[in-house]
Amino acid sequence: MAENGSGSDDVKATFREIYRRLKAELLGDPAFDFTDESRQWIDRMLDYNVPGGKLNRGISVVDSYKLLKEENQLSEDEVFHACALGWCIEWLQAYFLVLDDIMDNSHTRRGQLCWFRVPKVGLIAANDGIILRNHIPRILKRHFKGKPYYVDLLDLFNEVEFQTASGQMLDLITTHEGEKDLSKYTLPVYRRIVQYKTAYYSFYLPVACALLMSGENLDNFVDVKNILVEMGTYFQVQDDYLDCFGDSDFIGKIGTDIEDYKCSWLVVQALEHANESQKELLYVNYGKSDPACVAKVKSLYKDLNLENVFSEYESTSYAKLISSIEAQPSKAVQEVLKSFLHKIYKRQK
Amino acid sequence: MAENGSGSDDVKATFREIYRRLKAELLGDPAFDFTDESRQWIDRMLDYNVPGGKLNRGISVVDSYKLLKEENQLSEDEVFHACALGWCIEWLQAYFLVLDDIMDNSHTRRGQLCWFRVPKVGLIAANDGIILRNHIPRILKRHFKGKPYYVDLLDLFNEVEFQTASGQMLDLITTHEGEKDLSKYTLPVYRRIVQYKTAYYSFYLPVACALLMSGENLDNFVDVKNILVEMGTYFQVQDDYLDCFGDSDFIGKIGTDIEDYKCSWLVVQALEHANESQKELLYVNYGKSDPACVAKVKSLYKDLNLENVFSEYESTSYAKLISSIEAQPSKAVQEVLKSFLHKIYKRQK
Repeated sequence: MAENGSGSDDVKATFREIYRRLKAELLGDPAFDFTDESRQWIDRMLDYNVPGGKLNRGISVVDSYKLLKEENQLSEDEVFHACALGWCIEWLQAYFLVLDDIMDNSHTRRGQLCWFRVPKVGLIAANDGIILRNHIPRILKRHFKGKPYYVDLLDLFNEVEFQTASGQMLDLITTHEGEKDLSKYTLPVYRRIVQYKTAYYSFYLPVACALLMSGENLDNFVDVKNILVEMGTYFQVQDDYLDCFGDSDFIGKIGTDIEDYKCSWLVVQALEHANESQKELLYVNYGKSDPACVAKVKSLYKDLNLENVFSEYESTSYAKLISSIEAQPSKAVQEVLKSFLHKIYKRQK
Repeated sequence: MAENGSGSDDVKATFREIYRRLKAELLGDPAFDFTDESRQWIDRMLDYNVPGGKLNRGISVVDSYKLLKEENQLSEDEVFHACALGWCIEWLQAYFLVLDDIMDNSHTRRGQLCWFRVPKVGLIAANDGIILRNHIPRILKRHFKGKPYYVDLLDLFNEVEFQTASGQMLDLITTHEGEKDLSKYTLPVYRRIVQYKTAYYSFYLPVACALLMSGENLDNFVDVKNILVEMGTYFQVQDDYLDCFGDSDFIGKIGTDIEDYKCSWLVVQALEHANESQKELLYVNYGKSDPACVAKVKSLYKDLNLENVFSEYESTSYAKLISSIEAQPSKAVQEVLKSFLHKIYKRQK
């Protein structure tokens, strides 16, 4: 998610400090009778998988909660609770990534070997994923059990996890299972996968956590949810665009969506705009690791002017988002949504 | 779990009927925008993995709740809710089994191919396991959200899942990871694995669900929890004993714990009772698929009189359980516990 650095270095340091506290609590959880070996295992597994990302999802809980509070100053206790919820989202993300990497048979993640590829880990990683997931309700119970919004928090995390897993299923059965078939890659399918697999947990969940902490009833924020899901979709479209047209030196990795037969926004748009012979070219060359095939696909993307199609999409999407945001009754909520949008609009990585 | 058929055929028929209702609700869950293909996938995945077991865990929620209610007659609504909780336990079990089979690289389960081995499923099964797990809070939210014990139910399922995953971790890092090393197989390690991996969800969880439905506070039932965990341990010891000494025609499968290097109660006892040369024999022959090695281990078990050690354990354990049960203040609770015990005591399969 959002790259343009959310939160100051200060917030990030506090946030990281709270990770150490949460980890220590989990390693002493009385609900399980740890052996030394199993405690060390979890310790290492957490350090390997949880804090190594950009932490934007987690920190945006703190940022959003600050904006929702009238006074800009949070008490120490409020900072802690907002950070703890932020870490729950980072734990959720770690859980998905550990399992996704197994399912995708990936090699690296966040600049290191995927957890399941680490010597002596192997498929124990699947259970580690489950443990990561189980840490979330442990954290919530320990720190939020007395709060009036505790049950809403449990329901929220459950619902968002369900939606993410459902989006992942749709992605798996559409793009992994069976014969390669580009005719499955349509715009509605694309949007549905992105919405469920990414947008709910990356964009809606942080704001929903902040709203619950502010004492709000989420039923009154269906529009906010829809705006955030739309932003999440826009974010993923950018991601797909940058995979092919971004500056790989600046991004820090080289895109392989074409080789990997990904259901990318670009191939979906290419299929929409192509004539019969161009479609044929896509069917023949998409999803091949041969650089000549990749080059043909990229050159078709240029012929079809997908750079312009993207610019167009970006402007329209931005304008729509701004107008929905400005229709929001609460200025504080508008600020939260605009801060999300400005973190991602026209990003280059 | 308990083989001697809990619940009459009548209860079982009602129970199965409620599976169909719950499944239909999940396939129409408005929290996800199903495509036809993804709805069919889930439909087939559920039928393949959820209802094919003996259903003893699930049905024991209904049985226990009946005993806890003064009047033996349950309303239609009570039957439905007890069955729904029972199915949540069956869903939990299905989730663990689907993932365990992947981690253990197993071949068959409940007389059919493991789900991940079914053509076109593969590692999508890992996500299906996650979906199974996510169905539990969906069922709970739909049917229990208004109840005074809703939050306790969420906490209960979360805690028991955490304990089960922790037990599975302990099992994996003790018995799967690294070099084979029998010196890790001690009685405390054995008990800890069994307690967490099996006893909580198979024995405690059904009774805890029935107690919550009866309006009880689980904090007042710590002794009941300990008794059920002890019974779960006793059940697993039987399982391990029958794997080697049971009648395979009667049980319907041939045990392979010795070949599989399992941390079985028998090998733990053998290590406790063996002299140095017998230990040497175990170290050399345990965990080999060669029938000659297996025969040597079995013959050592006989030499060490493990059949008697088991009988002894069974009697002592039974006597202790009965005396703890009779120390319980509530007659109804005593009945619940005794009914569990009598389902498993001296079982032959």
